[in-house]
Amino acid sequence: MKFDVVTLFPEMIETYCSYSILKRAIENKIIDVETINPRDFTLDKHKKVDDTPYGGGAGMVLMAQPYIDAYESIKKTTNSLTIMLSPQGEPFKDKHAVEFSKYDEIILLCGHYEGYDERIREIIKPREVSIGDFVLTGGELPAICVIDAVSRKLEGTLGKIESADTDSFSNGLLEFPQYTKPREYRGLKVPEVLLNGNHKEIEKFRQEQCILRTKLKRPDLIK
Amino acid sequence: MKFDVVTLFPEMIETYCSYSILKRAIENKIIDVETINPRDFTLDKHKKVDDTPYGGGAGMVLMAQPYIDAYESIKKTTNSLTIMLSPQGEPFKDKHAVEFSKYDEIILLCGHYEGYDERIREIIKPREVSIGDFVLTGGELPAICVIDAVSRKLEGTLGKIESADTDSFSNGLLEFPQYTKPREYRGLKVPEVLLNGNHKEIEKFRQEQCILRTKLKRPDLIK
Repeated sequence: MKFDVVTLFPEMIETYCSYSILKRAIENKIIDVETINPRDFTLDKHKKVDDTPYGGGAGMVLMAQPYIDAYESIKKTTNSLTIMLSPQGEPFKDKHAVEFSKYDEIILLCGHYEGYDERIREIIKPREVSIGDFVLTGGELPAICVIDAVSRKLEGTLGKIESADTDSFSNGLLEFPQYTKPREYRGLKVPEVLLNGNHKEIEKFRQEQCILRTKLKRPDLIK
Repeated sequence: MKFDVVTLFPEMIETYCSYSILKRAIENKIIDVETINPRDFTLDKHKKVDDTPYGGGAGMVLMAQPYIDAYESIKKTTNSLTIMLSPQGEPFKDKHAVEFSKYDEIILLCGHYEGYDERIREIIKPREVSIGDFVLTGGELPAICVIDAVSRKLEGTLGKIESADTDSFSNGLLEFPQYTKPREYRGLKVPEVLLNGNHKEIEKFRQEQCILRTKLKRPDLIK
């Protein structure tokens, strides 16, 4: 799967992709991440990409021309999806990561500063996605969140040692508690059931814990 | 405000903090960001920080000892808050950014791989926060989201040219549409009201647009 990220801060995206599971997914050619910088498309001699808002107010607004030209320079495949990261978008959830993983190409539009010139929305008509009801300095972090969450759904991204099957939300519930060595730490012991090798009992314990935790921490997830 | 981030990938945090508004907030001594790596606290000769889960299953689990020792090495101020980033946490919202901005110090615990040994939760008793109902490879991205969103609420982080007052969620609604030069782009014109300099009318237009957009895109925000 190919990710194209339209951003004024390509290094933010590139740095994150050089670590851990995303790094390996790129090396194994499961994903490819490219960045497109609107600054390279500005027709202004000072390479300006933003300007003050009409109607007044604080902040700078991303100008339509460099942004749209940058977007249109991307050679899109037929099975592509364009996503604008914005606090105004639909809240991104695990089910979207699954849905987005079916595309061959995802184009991610990152804003910065006070926001996008509205005509960027009107011309590109992207699907708007938000990672949560809070405001960040730019769309770069949310874009990386989408790349990370979607990549985890692609076959081959997670090796044998990892697994997405028991992750929180994969079954609609929060994950069960995990324990590793030693058996006792500062007086706290690993639950006996996890040590006895009875897989049926372990499965039952974990399932109960999933339900218990979800009821306790996120009752809204249980209908 | 001081942020201490417990993470196996300190470079991820450090890189993001070297850009844009966070970079400037650090330079202006409004925030300070430090990282603590559990790998520096492991007593294992191979510097191991994770191991296989008791009870079986895929993935590696973060071991309690190096993680807790790393946490306890932090010299906490009296007005500090410890936050564990986890998909099991309370969903992070704009109101939390405001609340967290009242502390002098925030300690952010990042997981990685399959999760934390449950005893890390039991001993540290952190407040658990999630940035959304999706799963990422680690807590580093969510930690940076919290640092970014909280820093924006601190006086002095945003300069005169930026503003958080009109951001989405700051008044419980989505932000109004923004426009910048030129007045017409590909046949699309800036709304006349924004050009006439009548501040009362501009204010009214923007307020109406906030309500309209929120009703259209996020009806759940309007009660």
